[in-house]
Amino acid sequence: MANLITLTTDFGQSDGFVGVMKGVILSINPDAQFVDITHEIEPQNIQQGAFLLANSVPYFPAAAIHVCVVDPGVGSERRAVAVQVGETTFIGPDNGVLSLALQALAARTGAKPRGFHLNNPHYWLPRVSTTFHGRDVFAPSAAHLSRGVPLAELGAPTDDWITLVPPAPVHRGGRLIGHVIYIDRYGNIVTDISDAELKPLANRGELVVSIGGRDLHGLARTYSDVEPGEFAALIGSPWKLEVAQRNGNAAQALDVRIGDEVVVRNVDR
Amino acid sequence: MANLITLTTDFGQSDGFVGVMKGVILSINPDAQFVDITHEIEPQNIQQGAFLLANSVPYFPAAAIHVCVVDPGVGSERRAVAVQVGETTFIGPDNGVLSLALQALAARTGAKPRGFHLNNPHYWLPRVSTTFHGRDVFAPSAAHLSRGVPLAELGAPTDDWITLVPPAPVHRGGRLIGHVIYIDRYGNIVTDISDAELKPLANRGELVVSIGGRDLHGLARTYSDVEPGEFAALIGSPWKLEVAQRNGNAAQALDVRIGDEVVVRNVDR
Amino acid sequence: MANLITLTTDFGQSDGFVGVMKGVILSINPDAQFVDITHEIEPQNIQQGAFLLANSVPYFPAAAIHVCVVDPGVGSERRAVAVQVGETTFIGPDNGVLSLALQALAARTGAKPRGFHLNNPHYWLPRVSTTFHGRDVFAPSAAHLSRGVPLAELGAPTDDWITLVPPAPVHRGGRLIGHVIYIDRYGNIVTDISDAELKPLANRGELVVSIGGRDLHGLARTYSDVEPGEFAALIGSPWKLEVAQRNGNAAQALDVRIGDEVVVRNVDR
Repeated sequence: MANLITLTTDFGQSDGFVGVMKGVILSINPDAQFVDITHEIEPQNIQQGAFLLANSVPYFPAAAIHVCVVDPGVGSERRAVAVQVGETTFIGPDNGVLSLALQALAARTGAKPRGFHLNNPHYWLPRVSTTFHGRDVFAPSAAHLSRGVPLAELGAPTDDWITLVPPAPVHRGGRLIGHVIYIDRYGNIVTDISDAELKPLANRGELVVSIGGRDLHGLARTYSDVEPGEFAALIGSPWKLEVAQRNGNAAQALDVRIGDEVVVRNVDR
Repeated sequence: MANLITLTTDFGQSDGFVGVMKGVILSINPDAQFVDITHEIEPQNIQQGAFLLANSVPYFPAAAIHVCVVDPGVGSERRAVAVQVGETTFIGPDNGVLSLALQALAARTGAKPRGFHLNNPHYWLPRVSTTFHGRDVFAPSAAHLSRGVPLAELGAPTDDWITLVPPAPVHRGGRLIGHVIYIDRYGNIVTDISDAELKPLANRGELVVSIGGRDLHGLARTYSDVEPGEFAALIGSPWKLEVAQRNGNAAQALDVRIGDEVVVRNVDR
Repeated sequence: MANLITLTTDFGQSDGFVGVMKGVILSINPDAQFVDITHEIEPQNIQQGAFLLANSVPYFPAAAIHVCVVDPGVGSERRAVAVQVGETTFIGPDNGVLSLALQALAARTGAKPRGFHLNNPHYWLPRVSTTFHGRDVFAPSAAHLSRGVPLAELGAPTDDWITLVPPAPVHRGGRLIGHVIYIDRYGNIVTDISDAELKPLANRGELVVSIGGRDLHGLARTYSDVEPGEFAALIGSPWKLEVAQRNGNAAQALDVRIGDEVVVRNVDR
């Protein structure tokens, strides 16, 4: 199923940008099949795009082509790149937006990432704008790849693509100090503390999770473990520590934003 | 076309939840074909999800699999269920969100609904979160079903799934008293009074529709039957009494909300 | 690929209207393939729908069927039409929403548009509402066409469909006076001045672009040519003069709306 192409962008759904990318792809590969991951990345928020892509890729077939366009530097000297990890290919601007997903996939599978600078204009649209490479460069490159054109034909090998530092909590004085990395539509607060990192503390005794000036005692199993209106700290679906408010919006209620600190400690410290 | 899977959720389109469900399904059945009904159900509004699903199902091929996830009780004791009505299958949490659609389909076709408790973990993802059964339980169950795994394999038969009481108007003193059940993006106000229920009154003479403190005389045929800015009572596309404002937002203009009363009477009463 | 059907509407994504149209189409042609161009046209904004459709069509395969429903006159005497230009078919209400796209395609290819009044109820749904012809008339007509039913079967030939006057700038005293025709999600301001119209002035010397009470000197090549927070005048992806603010929302910052004037002159005039 090399025909499966996923799309992750900050293009929104109003302006027809995504539809046009699909039109370009279908003009080259009529058998392409699309899944939209999201087009509601905040305009130019590379970190957010990288997080959502990394979160989603593990649930897709290995042979998918993931196109991710969050591209504040479009039309500048920033490069267009493709990186292959095993059967999976990532295509997008070289600004780090692909990096969290491909690092995680490489770590999970042991496959070594192979990068390409998408610099062969033969596989772009004939006329390339300076402001919409999603349409003019990334979509046609992905389409040709999906039809079997080898990556080495689409561009020159490269191994120095930009890599974001994945968010990571730190240990300090028996406490685990992490940060809010995402807030979803329900207002659930996702942190950078993975379930694996939490386990040693949890094994030591009851936990206290401090966030937004509030202490939450113990981990809940799911949202409905607490009473309506109450807050729950739990392991959410991205397998990270999450803070939710049952039937409410935790981020609003706690006035929490991305980047805010979350501290986990044992109850007796 | 057992490959057609529709998706109706309150997941929104920002967080990648829907894309991930599609990734899970395509990983199991690469030939699956998706139609998104809506992902903008208000968070946890089971009634709204049930209404929109029931409204949509009659327009789909009989062999479709309808997955509907509005799931405030995710991770709790609430069951995951599948209900088959003729060739059509409904999959979702056992909280009533499927019930209006499947009751209507059973009534229309005469087929007897057959329920299953989706309790065979062999057909779930290997690791099941407590907060995203759309991804971990419903999507893989639907995908396996679409590939031909029989429902009886996916879970144990059950016949006591939760059923919502469909909204229904009442007759009182020659008046028909209904309620607002939906407001669409244009601000059109949909009521629970069906065209069939309206007909006897309409046959008796001119109607007066009272809503939001205003009396509307007579039924219009379509929006543009009235002057711009004026209100029209008419039979809308869900085949129910609807109140619209031409070139305007009736719900805002009349300050009407879901649950508000609408009264229909003959002009002489 | 006569199976490719694009959809452009003002239906939004909340109410299930688009999903239902796809259900209708798949019930008739199970092999139909969809691309959503946008469903976020402002309610009843025909001009905006016409612009976005015209912008998108050039990037789709020639054999596509483009269904566009922005339909304030639904249920009235306004006609449902299909217009064929070469291999491409446009389907929608006869209110001009199709006209910019089909005129541009005809101009580009030299093909003569052939119109049809979709008045054969045999190819509509059995029961036609007065308020949702997207579902009851346009979707089934498009589906039958995609299966090979000839247009002449779907309706009677017509050659007097409604045509919008495409926006066009005027020359006055060495100045080029255009208007804002679109504002995208980033706040980029798109004008009706094409790159071809701009070229003679640009060849004469440095340009000044006046908009929202501000003079912008010179054309930028892309957004990142200017400093963060500064404004850039450039040729955008619709190949028209566009005004952007780097890392900002130009339309908000300059308080510019659709219809506002933009004036281009040489620096010495």
